Amino acid sequence: MKFCSECATPVVLQIPPDDNRERFVCPACHTVHYQNPKLVVGSIPVWEEKGRLQVLLCKRAIEPRYGYWTLPAGFMENGETSSAAAERETRKEAGANIRLHDLFSILNVPHVHQVHLFYRATLLDLDFQPGTESLEVQLFSEADIPWQDIAFPTVSETLKFFFENQRQVAQGGSYQLHEHDIFKPMRSDL
Amino acid sequence: MKFCSECATPVVLQIPPDDNRERFVCPACHTVHYQNPKLVVGSIPVWEEKGRLQVLLCKRAIEPRYGYWTLPAGFMENGETSSAAAERETRKEAGANIRLHDLFSILNVPHVHQVHLFYRATLLDLDFQPGTESLEVQLFSEADIPWQDIAFPTVSETLKFFFENQRQVAQGGSYQLHEHDIFKPMRSDL
Repeated sequence: MKFCSECATPVVLQIPPDDNRERFVCPACHTVHYQNPKLVVGSIPVWEEKGRLQVLLCKRAIEPRYGYWTLPAGFMENGETSSAAAERETRKEAGANIRLHDLFSILNVPHVHQVHLFYRATLLDLDFQPGTESLEVQLFSEADIPWQDIAFPTVSETLKFFFENQRQVAQGGSYQLHEHDIFKPMRSDL
Repeated sequence: MKFCSECATPVVLQIPPDDNRERFVCPACHTVHYQNPKLVVGSIPVWEEKGRLQVLLCKRAIEPRYGYWTLPAGFMENGETSSAAAERETRKEAGANIRLHDLFSILNVPHVHQVHLFYRATLLDLDFQPGTESLEVQLFSEADIPWQDIAFPTVSETLKFFFENQRQVAQGGSYQLHEHDIFKPMRSDL
């Protein structure tokens, strides 16, 4: 941030009164420009048939991580709920019709100022197709997940939590919320 | 937003290519200025003694809702995790030493572009005192909660969920994540 978005004066980095962190502050109109973490919200779309459980992944058609696989997810928008964001992103990236269930994972990624939320979801049909941000959309059973080609650590962690929890559910357990923090960047530019 | 924070040119509201929502866009440097929901994170600090359970509330010394009671909570900062934010706000507003537990509630408030997260917490001692943003800090048992004077609906909903869930826990149940969306503003200015 270089200029005040309210009055176009160059901003300065300083600790405002009654604060203890440096903020971008306008020396003319005194607006404090707070910067806060963003929410990335997505789903774990599941298709179960004849006892075989598969999860829908999207191959990214955009940077970062072009060509790598991800769960459908994206930045939450103003004016929507987190579950609406999960449904919207699943439809946009995977063209998928889902029924959303409970929040399954919350993952902090403090070095990129993000919090990722993933909801469990059931695919209502197999009429999915890649949106403009995806090269391919494909169902994977646990044994076929391309672990080396997953786009983001929040996605690989969520998938690991999911298959582990799913085994507990198959033995009479229940789904739990999974909380996890990721401190190390996977690559220097992420 | 009136001016581009990168180059000080007046911004225009338009739908960028490959997008379907109006954004503030700079006609000079073409920066798209996205605006996204903010996370408000807090705790439910609990003190249990001789079978009597009490929750710590703070009487607000700042607007909005000056003089009303709230759970300790505030905006999550860049570079921190959501649990670190909950601990920081609890210390800042209530001067309280806590041990944080699992995420207890997630509440969307889409009309103010916020998502609120509350973690269960145990008070480690009774050495709490109001911070600069609080007039008073006080323990309340369920029967004494000032329901008419709670600052925000996300706090009253979380407290209701908490005491209900706590009764289940007392009968052998477990704490669950509570998900709730609040669509109607409590007052026109909130």
